[in-house]
Amino acid sequence: MSRFLSAEYRALEEYVPGEQPKERTYIKLNTNESPFPPSPLTMDAINREAAEKLCLYSDPESRALKEGLASLYGVVPNEVFVSNGSDDILNFAFMAFGKENGVVFPDITYGFYKVFAELHHLDAKIVPLNDDFTVPKQAFLNTGRMVVLANPNAPTGIALGVGEIEEIVAANPNAVVLIDEAYVDFGAESALPLLKKYDNLLIVQTYSKSRSMAGARLGFAFGNAEIIKDLEKIKYSTNPYNVNRLTQAAGLAALKEDGYYKGNCKRIILAREWTREALLSLGFTVLSSSANFLFAKHDKVSGEYIYRALKENGVLVRHFTAPRICEYNRITIGTEEQMRTMVDILRNILKGEE
Amino acid sequence: MSRFLSAEYRALEEYVPGEQPKERTYIKLNTNESPFPPSPLTMDAINREAAEKLCLYSDPESRALKEGLASLYGVVPNEVFVSNGSDDILNFAFMAFGKENGVVFPDITYGFYKVFAELHHLDAKIVPLNDDFTVPKQAFLNTGRMVVLANPNAPTGIALGVGEIEEIVAANPNAVVLIDEAYVDFGAESALPLLKKYDNLLIVQTYSKSRSMAGARLGFAFGNAEIIKDLEKIKYSTNPYNVNRLTQAAGLAALKEDGYYKGNCKRIILAREWTREALLSLGFTVLSSSANFLFAKHDKVSGEYIYRALKENGVLVRHFTAPRICEYNRITIGTEEQMRTMVDILRNILKGEE
Repeated sequence: MSRFLSAEYRALEEYVPGEQPKERTYIKLNTNESPFPPSPLTMDAINREAAEKLCLYSDPESRALKEGLASLYGVVPNEVFVSNGSDDILNFAFMAFGKENGVVFPDITYGFYKVFAELHHLDAKIVPLNDDFTVPKQAFLNTGRMVVLANPNAPTGIALGVGEIEEIVAANPNAVVLIDEAYVDFGAESALPLLKKYDNLLIVQTYSKSRSMAGARLGFAFGNAEIIKDLEKIKYSTNPYNVNRLTQAAGLAALKEDGYYKGNCKRIILAREWTREALLSLGFTVLSSSANFLFAKHDKVSGEYIYRALKENGVLVRHFTAPRICEYNRITIGTEEQMRTMVDILRNILKGEE
Repeated sequence: MSRFLSAEYRALEEYVPGEQPKERTYIKLNTNESPFPPSPLTMDAINREAAEKLCLYSDPESRALKEGLASLYGVVPNEVFVSNGSDDILNFAFMAFGKENGVVFPDITYGFYKVFAELHHLDAKIVPLNDDFTVPKQAFLNTGRMVVLANPNAPTGIALGVGEIEEIVAANPNAVVLIDEAYVDFGAESALPLLKKYDNLLIVQTYSKSRSMAGARLGFAFGNAEIIKDLEKIKYSTNPYNVNRLTQAAGLAALKEDGYYKGNCKRIILAREWTREALLSLGFTVLSSSANFLFAKHDKVSGEYIYRALKENGVLVRHFTAPRICEYNRITIGTEEQMRTMVDILRNILKGEE
């Protein structure tokens, strides 16, 4: 830290991304990426854009991309916001809507919420999940704060139904309710049908998971046009060209092959359910997941041991150290073959422990 | 604006980017882009990265790119910061280093500085440029504030020498001095040789101008390792993966063809000097520019008239409305051919006025 850093950031604890090891090649099941490449049209669009227009600034309004998203999702373009990954959108939303009355989110959820709250000095109320890791809905009614819920939640994978989300949105009429739907395409219900009815709902999604573009950085959000305008104001005061040309072109092209990406989601759901059964039969407790990962602990062997043994055997999963979840590992769902390999390795590891 | 937006942002006036008109094709001389495409290796790198790895997150440390920049510029990698365009870096720097004692910058300079100061509620001291639009150096000594200077300055194009920059850096030992070198490759002296000597110097550069990649969004900065760590802390608390894979690959590849980009800069400098002479002969006052643009006013015809007449004739330049500069237009230097066309059109416009 330099002697120039403002006092208010000196104690800030930044987010720690999942490992990106370079020393060997792993089966990488630790950061919830898709194992499938983007569609052919997506690649073509990137190559064409690079060849023709890279020397020109990107469209700060992302007009074509917003129109494409609006058309696919059945909203109008001024109800759509796009930004440099969904983290970027979350950051803007915490700034815009959390400063006066604070925020509320669960104790076990996406670890970045806590960081955004600290970065912007927001009063954060942290609600413990129930013992079974479900969201205690009552605690999110009439909060007087901006509500932030990942649905499905991470790292648990557990989803609320759209009816429960609606109760929460309706019971916080004077605060923004942000539903982080990063993983929604793997089996949960989106809150999108509620959009016309509630002016306080903000739904955040991403191309990083179901659309195989974690490396392109593209997040998008749906909300009332006035909420979207607020996010635009923060964006235009921070980094107006924050979504580059290649990413805008890729994002637009991907919408034209939605079937390809939907098919990949189906394969991941099938692989997830196969993996879940396999883990159960190996003596794991596995939460019921609507995401592209499973959250599992073994009934006899420690979470840390399993994490390390998998890593030694060439498989990376994500291990957390927070007390309530330190016996669990979060396992991203890769291809069918990767999951078979992972289960075989686990079986051998556990055999050695018996 | 929604009823949820925090009071502190309600009066915020966001940055207004240059026009990106879509209704017709212009000779686009309004946002200081390069008229030349990126080098062939740069394109290859993008295509390869898209095909092989887009489904994986980018390296949040941008390690390879930092090593490449360090090697080309003769520093070490932990003295290098990279981010999603230089605006992104400026934003982080204003947050990290300007909050306690405020900032100081000229009245006529990059318009975004004022927006960052307002966004982060910084006390901003605004120093008028001299009548000839040079920077009044004395006003930037012993300021007790973070100093922000574009060098060369925009939209004037006028540069300070490295000796003057050193005086300013040395005379503000307890504050960060940020030198925004977005346009440095077109003929100004970089402050880079001062880096080892001063722990309060932060130099910000970009791929958007001399490296033909405005559409890829890549900014970089050099500073003392501790200052860089502070910027990383803010980045990791905001958007750790903010430079995507395609951009990192393009940025690294471009360093390997530095000669190509240097050659383009020489062509732009030649075209600038040709254009300057032509404008002088048409009755313009033209500031002496070390950047890829000229700042010029006609001695008889208004700046706004010239802006509009050029636009009607298919040439976009940037017109500002601030009182001291409202008779000027900022004209980006394009190809030799574009400049000849622009001058011919201007000659016709002015003929009609006589």
